[in-house]
Amino acid sequence: MTNHEFYMDLALKNASAMKGQTSPNPLVGSVIVRDDEIVGIGAHMKAGGPHAEIHALRMAGDKAKGATAYVTLEPCSHHGRTGPCAVALVEAGVSRVVIANLDPNPVVAGRGVKILEDAGIEVIVGVREAESRKMNEVFNKYIVTKKPFVTLKAATTLDGKIAAHTGHSQWITSSDARTDVHHLRSENEAILVGVNTIIKDDSELTARIPGGRNPIRIIMDTRLRIPLDAKVVVDGKAPTWIFTGRDVDEKKVDQLIGAGVKVFKTSSIDFVAPEEVLTILGEQGITSLFIEAGGTVNASFFEKQLIDKVVLYVAPKLIGGKDAPTFLEGSGLTAMSEAVDLVDCSFEQVGVDWKFTGYPVYKS
Amino acid sequence: MTNHEFYMDLALKNASAMKGQTSPNPLVGSVIVRDDEIVGIGAHMKAGGPHAEIHALRMAGDKAKGATAYVTLEPCSHHGRTGPCAVALVEAGVSRVVIANLDPNPVVAGRGVKILEDAGIEVIVGVREAESRKMNEVFNKYIVTKKPFVTLKAATTLDGKIAAHTGHSQWITSSDARTDVHHLRSENEAILVGVNTIIKDDSELTARIPGGRNPIRIIMDTRLRIPLDAKVVVDGKAPTWIFTGRDVDEKKVDQLIGAGVKVFKTSSIDFVAPEEVLTILGEQGITSLFIEAGGTVNASFFEKQLIDKVVLYVAPKLIGGKDAPTFLEGSGLTAMSEAVDLVDCSFEQVGVDWKFTGYPVYKS
Repeated sequence: MTNHEFYMDLALKNASAMKGQTSPNPLVGSVIVRDDEIVGIGAHMKAGGPHAEIHALRMAGDKAKGATAYVTLEPCSHHGRTGPCAVALVEAGVSRVVIANLDPNPVVAGRGVKILEDAGIEVIVGVREAESRKMNEVFNKYIVTKKPFVTLKAATTLDGKIAAHTGHSQWITSSDARTDVHHLRSENEAILVGVNTIIKDDSELTARIPGGRNPIRIIMDTRLRIPLDAKVVVDGKAPTWIFTGRDVDEKKVDQLIGAGVKVFKTSSIDFVAPEEVLTILGEQGITSLFIEAGGTVNASFFEKQLIDKVVLYVAPKLIGGKDAPTFLEGSGLTAMSEAVDLVDCSFEQVGVDWKFTGYPVYKS
Repeated sequence: MTNHEFYMDLALKNASAMKGQTSPNPLVGSVIVRDDEIVGIGAHMKAGGPHAEIHALRMAGDKAKGATAYVTLEPCSHHGRTGPCAVALVEAGVSRVVIANLDPNPVVAGRGVKILEDAGIEVIVGVREAESRKMNEVFNKYIVTKKPFVTLKAATTLDGKIAAHTGHSQWITSSDARTDVHHLRSENEAILVGVNTIIKDDSELTARIPGGRNPIRIIMDTRLRIPLDAKVVVDGKAPTWIFTGRDVDEKKVDQLIGAGVKVFKTSSIDFVAPEEVLTILGEQGITSLFIEAGGTVNASFFEKQLIDKVVLYVAPKLIGGKDAPTFLEGSGLTAMSEAVDLVDCSFEQVGVDWKFTGYPVYKS
């Protein structure tokens, strides 16, 4: 590990410690080093509060002069609530700035670097770039596309089934894995299922962990089949938004609205279009979506190449069954060479189960 | 790690180094220690050659007197080709014997220990027992049941598919994983597929690695549909045995026999019974069977609780498809609570893929 990596790791550590408290802003950390001594550390802690570099510069005071500033994200060039950080770094007299990654927005990427370089400051970009990008994967997608970052979660037996052929699915994984899922629910702003999951399991879709924040519950329900006494309609534990089709029973729409549910009528007749759901969610300011649906809904997102991340829990058990469902159904791709590769994959044990994480790379 | 474990680990290491050269005998290692010094090491190297303890005792010579002998398997009590090892240990004057596990055959288990204890030797059983049992998992099953140890191998996408819905399956995993499979083929005495695999892929079922030993090719083919020009019929690279049903075309049987294929007619009409196949293979002296079949054949073994070990390669890719096959089809179990747990599980990365190994524990 180089010194650059050592200091950037510390900046990343401080940045990621603020996970969940900076929205809608990204996680950013900063470290200021002079003569091999750390003279300032900072992180962005809350929207409206100072950016990471400002905290670190304040801590460093006069010692920032001639120092090297490490920042996990390119210093901003715009006059926002705390002014352009690039200008602040120039004014503080730092002689070098090391950046993990450029601004994810291609329209402004490089502008902060230009301010620094124009002032004669040495700039190094790319130290721990992958780590920094991953830390802000949700922000990076939303800021550019105005659509939520989509994580698909599934739990299967070792033979790839999400239920027995009878539909019975409780439980595939251990309580440790299920607790892990509740943490992921809590980290996402919205959770999505198809109406069949509600009809079959009457799922609550809440984050049942200490301090858990319940995501907004999104139900894809083209023909508005949701039971009026479903938990997500009546329990009041989190907002529930239903995406339905064009031609639905207006009386039921009114009943749902009366129960406090938000109903979005989309242009679909046969199957609510996932891309339309994401566009609307984005417009509503939802930056992260967690899909815990069945194989048909999952496939509708997969086939439109809308899944950004896959989290799969695999239980070490076998159930068998030609008619037992898998987590990705639909028509499917036609040849193994067309299969969508996942990259940046990791496996870890969670209780007796295994947790896989990876990022699809779509071919075209 | 205790001293006992340290010495037993060395005995296990020497034993397992002989993998593939001791059949039909088990892998056994031995270490003799006096006054904290190793004075003899041995392993069973070849059927007909001395047992592990005999090699180690010869190396130790007079120093075996008062020493501790470590043996991975209970010393034998029968007059075989190299005499009862328990008696040899007594005659050599060892004062203590540490054993990993008792003889797997319940009829004779404990007899070797009794000879030692009757002679006043201290006996400790159970040091590294699990490791020793696992090392001889094939032998342990065969010696007791006279049926082969059955390993089911499959390769799936992350979404649990062994092929696209079109049947296209080449290739799911990387060449690293496929090479690993060829090693497993080489370690098994026989490999089994259904005739559909032959019709679809014209598989060779050989171990294509340097020094690979081709297993006997077992084809389940109830209605004798195998093409006469299939590679396994004509290539002569390894014996091919076909298990067929009761009522089949005698002329085709003769043609296959003429081509050097062995044809076993079983009592089945609709689907060759897997238990009958295992019984016949056992009678033929086959101790290990590697199944690389499709979901229907796999399920026929699974539903009869005949699979002893599962090796699954998971490729980090998604293909989707409600009609894409999985590795375990059939009717399947009806509730998740009935699912068969796998124990002693391990995961390791092989190239870009992941390899899972586990042992099913059937509920009744």
